[in-house]
Amino acid sequence: MSNIPYKIYLEENELPKDWYNVRADMKKKPAPILNPATLKPVTVDELSHIFCHELALQELNDTDAYIPIPDEIREFYKMYRPSPLVRAYFLEKKLGTPAHIYYKFEGNNTSGSHKLNSAIAQAYYAKKQGLKGVTTETGAGQWGTALSMACAYFDLACHVYMVKVSYEQKPFRREVMRTFGASVTPSPSMDTEIGRKINAEFPGTNGSLGCAISEAVEAATSKEGYRYVLGSVLSQVLLHQSVIGLETKAALDKYGIKADTIIGCAGGGSNLGGLISPFVGEMLRGEADYDIIAVEPASCPSLTRGKYAYDFCDTGKVCPLAKMYTLGSGFMPSANHAGGLRYHGMSSVVSELYDQGLLSARAVEQTSVFEAAEMFSRVEGILPAPESSHAIRVAIDEALKCKETGEEKNIVFGLTGTGYFDMVAYQKFNDGDMSDYIPSDAELEKSLSQLPQV
Amino acid sequence: MSNIPYKIYLEENELPKDWYNVRADMKKKPAPILNPATLKPVTVDELSHIFCHELALQELNDTDAYIPIPDEIREFYKMYRPSPLVRAYFLEKKLGTPAHIYYKFEGNNTSGSHKLNSAIAQAYYAKKQGLKGVTTETGAGQWGTALSMACAYFDLACHVYMVKVSYEQKPFRREVMRTFGASVTPSPSMDTEIGRKINAEFPGTNGSLGCAISEAVEAATSKEGYRYVLGSVLSQVLLHQSVIGLETKAALDKYGIKADTIIGCAGGGSNLGGLISPFVGEMLRGEADYDIIAVEPASCPSLTRGKYAYDFCDTGKVCPLAKMYTLGSGFMPSANHAGGLRYHGMSSVVSELYDQGLLSARAVEQTSVFEAAEMFSRVEGILPAPESSHAIRVAIDEALKCKETGEEKNIVFGLTGTGYFDMVAYQKFNDGDMSDYIPSDAELEKSLSQLPQV
Repeated sequence: MSNIPYKIYLEENELPKDWYNVRADMKKKPAPILNPATLKPVTVDELSHIFCHELALQELNDTDAYIPIPDEIREFYKMYRPSPLVRAYFLEKKLGTPAHIYYKFEGNNTSGSHKLNSAIAQAYYAKKQGLKGVTTETGAGQWGTALSMACAYFDLACHVYMVKVSYEQKPFRREVMRTFGASVTPSPSMDTEIGRKINAEFPGTNGSLGCAISEAVEAATSKEGYRYVLGSVLSQVLLHQSVIGLETKAALDKYGIKADTIIGCAGGGSNLGGLISPFVGEMLRGEADYDIIAVEPASCPSLTRGKYAYDFCDTGKVCPLAKMYTLGSGFMPSANHAGGLRYHGMSSVVSELYDQGLLSARAVEQTSVFEAAEMFSRVEGILPAPESSHAIRVAIDEALKCKETGEEKNIVFGLTGTGYFDMVAYQKFNDGDMSDYIPSDAELEKSLSQLPQV
Repeated sequence: MSNIPYKIYLEENELPKDWYNVRADMKKKPAPILNPATLKPVTVDELSHIFCHELALQELNDTDAYIPIPDEIREFYKMYRPSPLVRAYFLEKKLGTPAHIYYKFEGNNTSGSHKLNSAIAQAYYAKKQGLKGVTTETGAGQWGTALSMACAYFDLACHVYMVKVSYEQKPFRREVMRTFGASVTPSPSMDTEIGRKINAEFPGTNGSLGCAISEAVEAATSKEGYRYVLGSVLSQVLLHQSVIGLETKAALDKYGIKADTIIGCAGGGSNLGGLISPFVGEMLRGEADYDIIAVEPASCPSLTRGKYAYDFCDTGKVCPLAKMYTLGSGFMPSANHAGGLRYHGMSSVVSELYDQGLLSARAVEQTSVFEAAEMFSRVEGILPAPESSHAIRVAIDEALKCKETGEEKNIVFGLTGTGYFDMVAYQKFNDGDMSDYIPSDAELEKSLSQLPQV
C-alpha cells in the first residue's frame, strides 16, 4: 500500500480564498444569454430583476479569473469543508484494477450534496442586498435542502417548488426542508399562472425541473423583496462550485498526484463544471491535459443526443435564452428515472467546453448505475445518490479498462452526494423492478423541433 | 476566534491500535452475568454457544486493559475513522455561551452511526471462526444497517429482526440493509417460537428491543454455523466502542484541551460507554476528574427511575441474566417515543460505574430533544438522530448554565449519528403533533415487580 491516506483532508487554512471563473480563461466564451423579449444579450440590470445584483454581476463576468470568497461564506464553508478526497482503496481491490481511484466526497453535510456550496453563496448575497427571501425549484431535493439550510443560517424566507414526482417519492426530503424552516410546494402547482397553465396542458404531469423553475421565477418576480435562486446551470453556480475542483486539485498536488481521467455526473452541470473548471483552466492555458468525461442518464441525454442551440432554460419560457446542449425545453423526462439529472439542458459553460472538445460525454442506463452504486456502497461504505452513481459507473468502467490494459491511471471522480433519500429507487432496484428508459429519436425530434428561432 | 479548528481530524496513523477495556481498571467489577438455568456465572464455553468464541472471551475479560485491534478491522476503520471532533463554534455563537462545546461525530459513514465500530469487529470474529452468518436485532435501524454493511464486507449472511414499530416507521432503513444484502424481518415475527408467544401474549404489539433480541438469539442457536451478535449493552460492544473515547481524548490532548463535562445519550450504553471509558479510566486511576452525564429518554428511564438488580436482557428470557439498572424486561416502551433508546436495561459496565458515582444521569422529554435537534441542525449543519439529540439537549442546557455563571467550561458530547431515517419523527415535530410520554410509577412498579429472584 502506498503512503497516500484513505482520506486526504486539506487543512482549514488551505480552503480556497477565491472561486475560479473558468469563463475568464476561455478564448471563445460561452454565447451570451438573451432576453427572450428582445433576443439581445441580457444586461446586468435586466438580470437583477430575477437575481440578486451581485449574482447578476457574477453571471456575466467574463474577465475575472478569480473572485474572492467573502469571509462570511468561508466561515460557513468551514462547517463541512475542505471536503475529503478519498482514495478508493477498497473499490480498487474489489475491481482488481491497477488504476488508482480517487473521489471528492461532497455528501458530508446535512444537505447531503455539493449544492450547499452555491446555496450559501446565493443566500449570503440575498441577505447582503437586504432581501426578505428567495424562491427556487428543486428536483431530487438536494438543492432545496441545501438552500433551506443556507436560508436558515442567514434568516431568510425560503420558498421551494419541488418537482412533483420527487415530492411524492421523497416525502422525507420535504421534512428536512421544513425542519430548516422552508415552505415546500409540489410543482406544477395551482399557485402560479404558469403552474396552472402546465397543469392544464399536461394533466397529471409528474413535473420537471423546467416547470418548477418557471414557477419559482414567477413567484420571485411577483413578490416584493424576493429574488430567484438556481442550483445549477448558471455560470454563477459553476463559479461557486469551483471550490470542489480547487480543493481536489490542491489535495492531488499535495501528494504529487497527476489526474489522468476526471469524471463527473452532469444534470445541469454544476457539479461537473465545479469539479473540472480548475483542470480545464490548465488545459485552456496549455499547462496540462486531462481526459474529462461528463456522465449523463440515457433517459435525459442532453450532451450525447441533444442539439447545441439557443433554448429556454425553463418549460414556461420566462427565463432568458441560453445557448446550450438541449433536448428542447418541452422535453419531459420519464418519471421512470430514479435520480435527479432530469433537466432538458446543460450549463452554457459546460456546453461550450464540450463543443470545443475539452471534454467527452457518456450516457448510461439506470440499472447499470444502481449496480455500480450497490457495489460501491458495499466496499466504500458510502451509500451514494443515484446522480453521483452515474459517475461511479463510468469510474468503474474506466478502472476495468485499466485492468485489461494494465495501465496505472489516476481516475478522479466527483461523488456529489448521499442516497439516504433515494431508498424508493434502491427498493425498486433491490426488488428487480427497475427498468431502463431511452427516449426514442422521434420523441427527441419532436421536442427539438420546438426550439426557439434565434 | 481561537486557534482550534472547526474540525479536529486525527491522522490515520493516530487511529488507536488497541481498544481500551475499562473493566480492567475497575476495582469493583460489574457483577458477573449469570446462566439463567443455573444462576451461576456463565462460562466462556456457555457463552460460545451464543457468541463467537473470541467475543465470548472479550465479554468476560476483566484483566486486560488494552486489547489489540486486529489489522483487518483497523483497515476497515480507515474507511471512516478517525472521525472528526468538531468544535461547535456556530452553536456556541447561537447560544451566546462562554462554554466551549465539542462533539465527536460518528455519523460520517453510511450506517450513519457509531454502531459500525462494533459491527465490523463482530463480523470479523465471526468470519475468522468460519461461520456462515449472524443474526441480530435492530431498533431504530442503526445497528442493523451497520451490521449489514459489515457482513457485506466480510461476505457473511446477515439476518436482522427489526422492532416492528421501527420497521413500519422506517421502511427505508430496511432498504439500506437489503442493499447491503441482509434479510430483514419485523419483530415479533411468527418465524420463531418466542415471536409467536409474544404475539399471542401482546396482540398488536409494536415490539421492543427485548423481544427482537430473543428472536435473534433463538434463530442463531437453532441454525448450524450461525451466532448471535448484539449492538449494545454487552461489555464486548463497549470495548469496541472505546475507539470513540480514545480518539476523542487524543484529539483533545493534541490541542491541550481538558474536558470538564462529557455527555452521551444512553440506550443500552454502547455509545456512552465507548465515549467515556478512557476518561473514566483516568478517574479510576486517580489521574483526572470529569463531570460525566448519561442522558436517557424520560419515556424509558432505566438509570434515573430503574432498579439496580439482576434482570433478563431480553423479553423472552433466553439470554443470560445481567445485573444492571433496569425497568424490568417486561417493560414495553411507548411507541410514542420517536427515537431509539427504547431498551429496558443498561450496560452492566455503565450501570456499575453509575452505581459507583462516576457518572450522573438525566432524563429528558422528546419534544425538548427535538427542539434541540432543530436548533443544532440549523446552526451546525448536521441533522442529528433523535438518539444523539438527547445528548445535544443536555449539552445545550449545560452551555446555557455557563452563560449564567460565566464559566468557560469545555463541554464534550457524543453525536452518535444522523437523522436521515427519522423524518417521520421530525415531521411529527414540525407539524406540532409530538407529545411526551412519561411512564407512571404504577407502570414501572408493575414491570419491576417481575424481576427474577436471584
